[in-house]
Amino acid sequence: MHIGMVGLGRMGGNMAERLRRGGHTVVGYDRDPSLSDVSGLQELVERLPAPRAVWVMLPAGEPTRQTVHSLGELLEPGDVVIDGGNSNYRDDQEHGARLAAKGIGFIDCGVSGGVWGLENGYALMVGGEEEHVRRLMPIFETLKPAGEYGFVHAGKVGAGHFVKMVHNGIEYGMMQAFAEGYELIAASGLVKDVPETFRSWKEGTVIRSWLLDLLVRALEDDPGLEGIRGYAQDSGEGRWTVQAAVDHAVPLPVITAALYARFASRQDDSPAMRVVAALRNQFGGHAVESAKGADSPGADVAPPAV
Amino acid sequence: MHIGMVGLGRMGGNMAERLRRGGHTVVGYDRDPSLSDVSGLQELVERLPAPRAVWVMLPAGEPTRQTVHSLGELLEPGDVVIDGGNSNYRDDQEHGARLAAKGIGFIDCGVSGGVWGLENGYALMVGGEEEHVRRLMPIFETLKPAGEYGFVHAGKVGAGHFVKMVHNGIEYGMMQAFAEGYELIAASGLVKDVPETFRSWKEGTVIRSWLLDLLVRALEDDPGLEGIRGYAQDSGEGRWTVQAAVDHAVPLPVITAALYARFASRQDDSPAMRVVAALRNQFGGHAVESAKGADSPGADVAPPAV
Amino acid sequence: MHIGMVGLGRMGGNMAERLRRGGHTVVGYDRDPSLSDVSGLQELVERLPAPRAVWVMLPAGEPTRQTVHSLGELLEPGDVVIDGGNSNYRDDQEHGARLAAKGIGFIDCGVSGGVWGLENGYALMVGGEEEHVRRLMPIFETLKPAGEYGFVHAGKVGAGHFVKMVHNGIEYGMMQAFAEGYELIAASGLVKDVPETFRSWKEGTVIRSWLLDLLVRALEDDPGLEGIRGYAQDSGEGRWTVQAAVDHAVPLPVITAALYARFASRQDDSPAMRVVAALRNQFGGHAVESAKGADSPGADVAPPAV
Amino acid sequence: MHIGMVGLGRMGGNMAERLRRGGHTVVGYDRDPSLSDVSGLQELVERLPAPRAVWVMLPAGEPTRQTVHSLGELLEPGDVVIDGGNSNYRDDQEHGARLAAKGIGFIDCGVSGGVWGLENGYALMVGGEEEHVRRLMPIFETLKPAGEYGFVHAGKVGAGHFVKMVHNGIEYGMMQAFAEGYELIAASGLVKDVPETFRSWKEGTVIRSWLLDLLVRALEDDPGLEGIRGYAQDSGEGRWTVQAAVDHAVPLPVITAALYARFASRQDDSPAMRVVAALRNQFGGHAVESAKGADSPGADVAPPAV
Repeated sequence: MHIGMVGLGRMGGNMAERLRRGGHTVVGYDRDPSLSDVSGLQELVERLPAPRAVWVMLPAGEPTRQTVHSLGELLEPGDVVIDGGNSNYRDDQEHGARLAAKGIGFIDCGVSGGVWGLENGYALMVGGEEEHVRRLMPIFETLKPAGEYGFVHAGKVGAGHFVKMVHNGIEYGMMQAFAEGYELIAASGLVKDVPETFRSWKEGTVIRSWLLDLLVRALEDDPGLEGIRGYAQDSGEGRWTVQAAVDHAVPLPVITAALYARFASRQDDSPAMRVVAALRNQFGGHAVESAKGADSPGADVAPPAV
Repeated sequence: MHIGMVGLGRMGGNMAERLRRGGHTVVGYDRDPSLSDVSGLQELVERLPAPRAVWVMLPAGEPTRQTVHSLGELLEPGDVVIDGGNSNYRDDQEHGARLAAKGIGFIDCGVSGGVWGLENGYALMVGGEEEHVRRLMPIFETLKPAGEYGFVHAGKVGAGHFVKMVHNGIEYGMMQAFAEGYELIAASGLVKDVPETFRSWKEGTVIRSWLLDLLVRALEDDPGLEGIRGYAQDSGEGRWTVQAAVDHAVPLPVITAALYARFASRQDDSPAMRVVAALRNQFGGHAVESAKGADSPGADVAPPAV
Repeated sequence: MHIGMVGLGRMGGNMAERLRRGGHTVVGYDRDPSLSDVSGLQELVERLPAPRAVWVMLPAGEPTRQTVHSLGELLEPGDVVIDGGNSNYRDDQEHGARLAAKGIGFIDCGVSGGVWGLENGYALMVGGEEEHVRRLMPIFETLKPAGEYGFVHAGKVGAGHFVKMVHNGIEYGMMQAFAEGYELIAASGLVKDVPETFRSWKEGTVIRSWLLDLLVRALEDDPGLEGIRGYAQDSGEGRWTVQAAVDHAVPLPVITAALYARFASRQDDSPAMRVVAALRNQFGGHAVESAKGADSPGADVAPPAV
Repeated sequence: MHIGMVGLGRMGGNMAERLRRGGHTVVGYDRDPSLSDVSGLQELVERLPAPRAVWVMLPAGEPTRQTVHSLGELLEPGDVVIDGGNSNYRDDQEHGARLAAKGIGFIDCGVSGGVWGLENGYALMVGGEEEHVRRLMPIFETLKPAGEYGFVHAGKVGAGHFVKMVHNGIEYGMMQAFAEGYELIAASGLVKDVPETFRSWKEGTVIRSWLLDLLVRALEDDPGLEGIRGYAQDSGEGRWTVQAAVDHAVPLPVITAALYARFASRQDDSPAMRVVAALRNQFGGHAVESAKGADSPGADVAPPAV
């Protein structure tokens, strides 16, 4: 079928390519003219046969919001917009309602797969009305991995990105679990070949997983991870997962701990730990000072009762 | 080769079977005479050609300790004992030293694979001296999964169980990550088919893993997990992981949170939370009492400042 | 000075009383006519001399929002509204901007002190413009505790409730710290008189605090806290603290853990822990079933490798 | 009464001084001859009238263990040893049993109070037999603060240090709660005077406490805590608290999080977070490389699905 693709960066470009290989006709638009088939959204809309389908593959937040709003002005009743970026599900609900008021459909589609998606397919988590999802199924069929998995119509508008958000929250927890295990093994000094240990876990263990495969690859490239700083960014989705948990009074100790570990990894010096250090100083500070003075205490000083 | 197997329960019995299928000669001993090839450890030792290898597959703690001690009395220099149970690595270090003093070798072998191991092989994590491990390689080759993974000689005595312990710690964190994601999705009310959502994740996602496969199976059997209580035991290994982390000053927020979630799941009523509730009562309690008295407050009562 | 007080429940009623004792003239309004000096907000406004000051002491959220909006319609330029409830600081920022557009001042005031406030004074944390805060100082002076502490003008509109929110977050962490200590002491079986132990901590220790005093009181009333369920509500402020932390990428492991402990305390059965239990069943389930069948394993069953 | 004091460092020296001021006769021994009244433990024992009491005030672990063992050789039935250091309660149980076999009493005494103890008294948490504790009461009465609080006979041998250990665990949680609140306030940018805000909390709030007083002092000395690194040591007691919790299956999320925050504060670079960063690289790494190549993507690159 025909589809417009807005945003031809790494993800959007690969998805357009996979769709073309699958026999679809893709009209692509990107701010970078060298990537773009059209001069702007208006021309993109004009080049598509009605009822139109336009896939938005842009950074979450303002870029996506502005594009969805613009498409709302340009499209006609019966058309459908798909947001394949990493939008917050509340944005989806707002976008869906705004477009629905004009008779335009809206689908939110969480996409997983990264750079492997072009060859292996993308896992798709979709929210929207049954009729819109059904109309787009040829597109989803081409994008998803071969086989019976990798696609779910999770619920109404917002459910797709909600489910993708939780997927990423789970991912945070799993990554941190491997990370903690690695650090403990390294710290123990008991294990002669850490990469080999992780490699051995690829079969027969309870923790075998794609993330383990990736970690083994990373350790093959750099056995002590010497070339990597212990500094981890977070995308919005881990944060939104925690905020959704707080909204629903669901305790998420593991996922939250994983998020906080990333926050802490980005601090050169923790203001909180300066407070802890300052309090410890207050307990014992004066004694320490007098210890340098005339009445030096003996060697058998009991440690401060902290 | 010839090997003695002590403990023919679910794990030991299956492992003996896999070894026999692989062409080894196994002499088995179990407290249950109907399972046992011999009347006791003494006969087991007599039936094996020197240098002997005896695999102990018993519950960690006293059962394993007593059996290793008894074997220390019965075996001869040059023999090797393998502890394939879930022993603490500190026990291994003690057992290894005790047997080494008599010229008897000791190998600790963490085993993963559960009931699937008989058919698919067991992941093996081994600690011990190079010469002992080399001697036992035919046994390990038969027990491990086909292919290049599933076996590691991790280090000296204790390293095998240490690595298995950390494997289980990682497993705790991963399980809890999936568990939290499930609860948040269920609580959101946004997802029309929760089992289908997890099923879709089996391909193309970052979190695809054997644990996800198991969770999908569990949800196929019981889509709302209605037949299962939210009550989770822990084996010793999660606890030992946390204790090793504390010993090494390694922060393990995710693995520890997963362990604590299990502890909390087994409490009908939390003494800690009784304290929190009691403190909240103290803030507002007397007012609440007087509120029932003569000067009843209006409907617009501000919530207690807690 | 003259002041209107909207909401004469436990908090508002006591604050009005403290203000009257301090020589101020309070016109009170409450939905309950038996408590109210006036028939409605309009009469309240009419009864106050310009420039007016109206203190809103209502539940956060809709009740406060509606009242602030209504006052915005009734008041005149130069008047000031004070929100003394537990509003979210973002609500304050919206209310402040909305009223400022009409020339009406807005102060947010976080209030601590509960039922002891009437006698001992209320700790006040204030946000707003310098000129508005200065105008209200006679009121704040009367409400606050005697002595040099208990009042801060923390910053612009929103800063007062923000600071009060963080105060409550800290309170969550402190309460949970005492709660955990209590549970560990009780579980140890080593301590013959738990209440006496906590009582002894009231002097000379690092943890002496008002919360400890309250806990000692609670244990004097009910030494084993037998009459209290381990079930703890949370007000919005703990949640907002966590959400603000996520917004600012500040790791709050302790405060968040305290909040999650409350969430968990309210669950009869945890969906997350049903997942963990279900996964554990999957590891060993089939074996357990076959264990009941013909090839029953021996007594020395190794524990499942979980 | 007469008492021997072993270890005349900051704590032991001050306690000896407070005892002398209280009318007791103290014979002190320290490795530093300039502080010592006697040449060694033997002379100390000879100088004391039977039945003797010897207070050991040394670092926990080997120094205390060796001294208790030596005293066990030198003392006579009916004498009593008091360990006032920060020993692990399991050490106490071993020491108590060893001395009891010789008819010598043993008391463990957790001491809180730091440098303020000389003037204000020390909070004492005591474990041991009733008869031994009763005999030492004149000493405890002098050391403890005036008033009705600050002393508890918590239980049998070990209970004193156990209770002190939990006290310190609670302290960790409380300190971290204040620390997190401080960081969030600082990060918000909403508060014009952070030290003044904490100072205002000293009256009328729920969180008023000695730790808050200390924090206010620290902020008066250094309002932005600029002179302090966010690097916090831990004494053994926080670790032992977590290990005791794991032994008793008691969830301690807050106290453990506080301990882990200290561990993390001492890491220049976290190996765990290197793993997280490495995994994030694996998701997007190859694309990033090709992005630098010929087919450079447009500006509207969707963020990696992490």
